Amino acid sequence: MPEEMSKMCDFQLHDEPLPLKQLLEDCKLALKYQVKTGHPHFFNQLSCGLDIISLAGEWLTAAANTNMFTYEIAPVFILMENVVLEKMRNMIGWRTGDSILAPGGSISNLYAFLAARHHKFPQYKEKGLSSIPGHLVMFTSDQCHYSVKSCASVCGLGTDYCICVPSDERGRMIPTELERLVKYHKDRGNVPFFVNATSGTTVLGAFDPLEEIADICQKYDMWMHVDAAWGGGLLFSKKYRHPRLTGVERADSVTWNPHKLMGTLLQCSTVHFKYEGILLNCNAMSAEYLFMTDKIYDPKYDTGDKVIQCGRHNDIFKLWLQWRGKGTSGFERHMDRLMELAEYQVRRIKEQPDKFHLILEPEMVNVSFWYLPKQLRGLPHDAHKEIKLGKVCAKLKGKMMQSGTLMVGYQPDDRRPNFFRSIISSAAVTEKDVDFMLSEMDRLGQDIVVD
Amino acid sequence: MPEEMSKMCDFQLHDEPLPLKQLLEDCKLALKYQVKTGHPHFFNQLSCGLDIISLAGEWLTAAANTNMFTYEIAPVFILMENVVLEKMRNMIGWRTGDSILAPGGSISNLYAFLAARHHKFPQYKEKGLSSIPGHLVMFTSDQCHYSVKSCASVCGLGTDYCICVPSDERGRMIPTELERLVKYHKDRGNVPFFVNATSGTTVLGAFDPLEEIADICQKYDMWMHVDAAWGGGLLFSKKYRHPRLTGVERADSVTWNPHKLMGTLLQCSTVHFKYEGILLNCNAMSAEYLFMTDKIYDPKYDTGDKVIQCGRHNDIFKLWLQWRGKGTSGFERHMDRLMELAEYQVRRIKEQPDKFHLILEPEMVNVSFWYLPKQLRGLPHDAHKEIKLGKVCAKLKGKMMQSGTLMVGYQPDDRRPNFFRSIISSAAVTEKDVDFMLSEMDRLGQDIVVD
Repeated sequence: MPEEMSKMCDFQLHDEPLPLKQLLEDCKLALKYQVKTGHPHFFNQLSCGLDIISLAGEWLTAAANTNMFTYEIAPVFILMENVVLEKMRNMIGWRTGDSILAPGGSISNLYAFLAARHHKFPQYKEKGLSSIPGHLVMFTSDQCHYSVKSCASVCGLGTDYCICVPSDERGRMIPTELERLVKYHKDRGNVPFFVNATSGTTVLGAFDPLEEIADICQKYDMWMHVDAAWGGGLLFSKKYRHPRLTGVERADSVTWNPHKLMGTLLQCSTVHFKYEGILLNCNAMSAEYLFMTDKIYDPKYDTGDKVIQCGRHNDIFKLWLQWRGKGTSGFERHMDRLMELAEYQVRRIKEQPDKFHLILEPEMVNVSFWYLPKQLRGLPHDAHKEIKLGKVCAKLKGKMMQSGTLMVGYQPDDRRPNFFRSIISSAAVTEKDVDFMLSEMDRLGQDIVVD
Repeated sequence: MPEEMSKMCDFQLHDEPLPLKQLLEDCKLALKYQVKTGHPHFFNQLSCGLDIISLAGEWLTAAANTNMFTYEIAPVFILMENVVLEKMRNMIGWRTGDSILAPGGSISNLYAFLAARHHKFPQYKEKGLSSIPGHLVMFTSDQCHYSVKSCASVCGLGTDYCICVPSDERGRMIPTELERLVKYHKDRGNVPFFVNATSGTTVLGAFDPLEEIADICQKYDMWMHVDAAWGGGLLFSKKYRHPRLTGVERADSVTWNPHKLMGTLLQCSTVHFKYEGILLNCNAMSAEYLFMTDKIYDPKYDTGDKVIQCGRHNDIFKLWLQWRGKGTSGFERHMDRLMELAEYQVRRIKEQPDKFHLILEPEMVNVSFWYLPKQLRGLPHDAHKEIKLGKVCAKLKGKMMQSGTLMVGYQPDDRRPNFFRSIISSAAVTEKDVDFMLSEMDRLGQDIVVD
């Protein structure tokens, strides 16, 4: 508990320096009480695990301690960035384009929104929202990451103009609903311009049907963004890429976070564009003091004016080094293995119908299920029981946190109360750990009683 | 040169894994060709140096590899964040308030803009720009960081509505000009709502007069933001805090980057607000799947819904550990020492008027000057000569980069062509290094000839 932790640890800052011995104690304490996100029994977040080569890369990055805005102070890293981002664009299916690393998938999605707005309405940059006749409208599924809605708030549209398209029972956007809503808003004089499709939703791991969404975007001249922050890693897998990401090359922009499925250390998020030079056009503020054109090298190697951050952390070296160490084939094996483990988990859940209730057949490594304590076993499954199962989640999660043996996340969604959603994205996980997850939930949870 | 570097190093990604030996070679090569930003002869950026305790903190952060959005997965670090940010708010002069760490000063400034907009016009979040009668207008000096202008673009105002207030010859915003422009825009039916004052401008290191700006903000009911990303560190110094930052406590929000003057590793940027709870009000998207209220701990410890990034890198541990190691008094000594060294540099420049021309008496560790090669010595100083001195900068900088012995930045501004701006923000710099800077510039530059 926060209050206990504050008592147990001395977090205070003092006027005088503390001795080295105390600093070492501080480090030990921080590691002791920190949650072990690299442990194979941590199934709580989309980012799990601790890739050792990527860790080495991050350590070297810290030692090099540079900023990515100009080639002159980050020559090696800028070139690495070019190589890696081009490779990723090629994997999406594009020959040219533009890309950038951003501090997290939410900011990557924001970049996509900004590029779309600038591409469709270049006068916006100077003149602002009032330069457009009619109100801009964007579309996304009701299962999307909340950062998409946040774009609407940040960028001045207002969240009322970020339209949620209904999804099917598997969490996939319904294309006919998208088209209906686009028409509805056009008829009202609004200006539909941006559609976010999600490849790998946060909760259910669902994949929106990209081909059908691309057709609609084409028909109504809207920008198509694919938020593949979570599912992007499956582009490595011949076995699992299709049909999940079929059509991704028809998008105008794609978010893809290596710090999720690929296991790169936090943070490492990328966003890709089909169009060369679009980031500079969109974001350049022409800061003369930083991005002079009379340098001895070609200023196209300076990236600072392409971004809204100015200073930018070096997030590339840990990914580049990891890729060198794993090889493209290593990432493919990693993806196939994660999916295989999730399939194993689904089988094990189905084998124990008295204790676990699988909510749906997953498309990805998100597995959604309820745990049934003794109190609720053998009763018919209905809405009333679901409410009780929902209450079990919070109690059982509390027990996990207190015992310190396991972390599995839970949440409600539009269709049901709280349910567990486990994630397998750590290379350290084996079948034994999956078995442990289920047996430990049973050990901690069997005697839970809810009203 | 980028082309040579690409030939010298193998940056390619392969299908098959590379052996460990090759990865070690990769690391060596990266460090070899990377610019040594921690070297005391690197005077090029606002962030210089390599604080070893902060580096240790960053290494531990990488090993802990967690995300800052919920207490449940970052318990220790969330509590450290609370302690450090409260301490920083107290140093600004506030008893309560709200703060967050952001990926760089530009995003910190964006947070301030968003909070100001939400505070003044809460309906904006849902209804967007069209919900306001009249066009929002923001003000900043013509010397401000370009991220302020970028806010206007990102957030839908348009850069035409980010009004540049003229500054005096020392680079400080002229308050009477601010008031004149505010009145002008009010008279035209626009809605002035936000003023950015800079404490430590990027190029000249100038401090806008905060008290006078605060009076105007109060009079016209505008939000006052202080971008002290660069100058904030001087809050530690009894000797240099006043008059530079006098009045900062009257601001509504303050950006302050520990990764600049304080020498914390990249990235570490903070933004502070006078008002408790403002970040949650402004940015919350209420993502139910992440920020449930039925947790076993008080959900006020979850920070994810306060930010626009969702996932957030742990930028606190390296600062907290560094602060424990230096003590508040250690940071004060560090600030006083940096300022003393800049004063030493100014004296040395003045002692060599044939070779160096000081542009103005600095208020901070930015020193602005021209170097005179033999060709230009002894000639009267006029506009014609300034153009030539400007040309010398690009040539001399090229020589520095090629020799690899020194890095000093240059840029033009509104009043003059290119000039050098050196920065002393590294704890490793001594008087000897300052002497080296000047003598090395002379060694490399004396024979430069310009048209």
